[in-house]
Amino acid sequence: MKADAPHITVAEFDALCRREANFVEQYGFVTERIAWGSARARLPFDEAHIRPGGTISGPAMMALADFTMYALVLGMIGPVKLAVTTSLNINFLRKPGPADVIAEARILKLGKRLAVGEVTLLGAGEDDPVAHVTATYSIPPPEYRE
Amino acid sequence: MKADAPHITVAEFDALCRREANFVEQYGFVTERIAWGSARARLPFDEAHIRPGGTISGPAMMALADFTMYALVLGMIGPVKLAVTTSLNINFLRKPGPADVIAEARILKLGKRLAVGEVTLLGAGEDDPVAHVTATYSIPPPEYRE
Amino acid sequence: MKADAPHITVAEFDALCRREANFVEQYGFVTERIAWGSARARLPFDEAHIRPGGTISGPAMMALADFTMYALVLGMIGPVKLAVTTSLNINFLRKPGPADVIAEARILKLGKRLAVGEVTLLGAGEDDPVAHVTATYSIPPPEYRE
Amino acid sequence: MKADAPHITVAEFDALCRREANFVEQYGFVTERIAWGSARARLPFDEAHIRPGGTISGPAMMALADFTMYALVLGMIGPVKLAVTTSLNINFLRKPGPADVIAEARILKLGKRLAVGEVTLLGAGEDDPVAHVTATYSIPPPEYRE
Repeated sequence: MKADAPHITVAEFDALCRREANFVEQYGFVTERIAWGSARARLPFDEAHIRPGGTISGPAMMALADFTMYALVLGMIGPVKLAVTTSLNINFLRKPGPADVIAEARILKLGKRLAVGEVTLLGAGEDDPVAHVTATYSIPPPEYRE
Repeated sequence: MKADAPHITVAEFDALCRREANFVEQYGFVTERIAWGSARARLPFDEAHIRPGGTISGPAMMALADFTMYALVLGMIGPVKLAVTTSLNINFLRKPGPADVIAEARILKLGKRLAVGEVTLLGAGEDDPVAHVTATYSIPPPEYRE
Repeated sequence: MKADAPHITVAEFDALCRREANFVEQYGFVTERIAWGSARARLPFDEAHIRPGGTISGPAMMALADFTMYALVLGMIGPVKLAVTTSLNINFLRKPGPADVIAEARILKLGKRLAVGEVTLLGAGEDDPVAHVTATYSIPPPEYRE
Repeated sequence: MKADAPHITVAEFDALCRREANFVEQYGFVTERIAWGSARARLPFDEAHIRPGGTISGPAMMALADFTMYALVLGMIGPVKLAVTTSLNINFLRKPGPADVIAEARILKLGKRLAVGEVTLLGAGEDDPVAHVTATYSIPPPEYRE
């Protein structure tokens, strides 16, 4: 994979999500960076995402990872709405503290039909990851894109 | 594993979630059944969980699967708040239609330290699964339970 | 998915593996059944596959699961050599006893580009699974098939 | 996790595997390095591990990843034979060429009961990974160790 400029900007990505993906709002994700082959997003700490034990819920972390992967993939193929997750594997590693969670995604493979990436989730201000994700996106053939 | 009566009722489980897990409310999950070794829950269809392409978002399905696994596990070990997901793997299989999504969880292994289950997600009124999940919960040692 | 006759017989599948897949021999896998949407294979017990602790090694179980998935997929698309595993997730559930291990695979989704299945591994004569696998195969476009 | 000296040397690890794990021999794995929190091993290219299409088989890559994880984990907890894989997730990314495959494992979390790591598999002399693995090992309580 030769490096390239990202095929979507943060502003374009956010606009697409606002228009098409209602679920993004409920989490308040902040897209921080989209580069060629990597992306970063943030889940602001919010009591609404707490699970028993007083920590950020697993589903909120899975949603953040999936969202960041979406930014990563669109950064490499452009604003293709029908790119969809085909599988996602998450390992929860540590209890995040009462702070934002930051997701760093990077590409492992960009193929013609599948993109595979990994996402590391970190508590803001912490060094050790709170979760690690690998995910696969299906890339629609060009004739299905808009 | 010898069959047993479930160690938590649907009403007790829902009360625990309402008290401890704010994130459950945002999805409106309905716990339909908790038996020994299996559990069923439902995600009511709602425009709020739509992703680009007009279908239920992956994160909403992951959240539903995790929630149903939690019901399954507490049904076997009782109301142990610190039981936490350690890993989750999801395969998205088909686009769900504009309808509720139902999750059927069943136990694969209940050990002293880990519980492993699988969850099949179905669109209401459909036969073919929309997603398939396996997940592992860590069971805290008895001295950490309340 | 409408049921159909399997697109490859056990004998044809074994011949293809003997011709193309040297690694199959080292395990001595026995293909027991290929039907439309399901397949069964067996790993004969052999001291060569023992891991520390005296039990069948994880890699031998992963190889058996992958092999059985391959039988399942070719049973649905015919003798397409370039169908390849794109991802595999295994949960090890119990220590198998000193006996054959049997793998039962069934299809979760047969798409145009991806096939997803699950495989349950059982010790011969036992009821509870020793491992559970989900795997995805990539199906080459028709023009790449032989 | 504070860095430490590895708790097992390459020579000790190889001796343990030779004594206890017959399956290692069939692949001819070479343990190249065990450090605190990381390990590297190599699968020498061999016609015996070829799959249809002329490339290294998936099972051989899964076995290599599992082996390297085992070296990684024993490097952090010492020669504990009963440390066992509880789950493994692999994404196959590219067809390896006709060359050795090298596995680089690094720890994501070393807990009291679970160790989680990731393994990147590379074809010798190539830059892009051929596969990516995450795996979890169960660590037996001290009273079960030898």
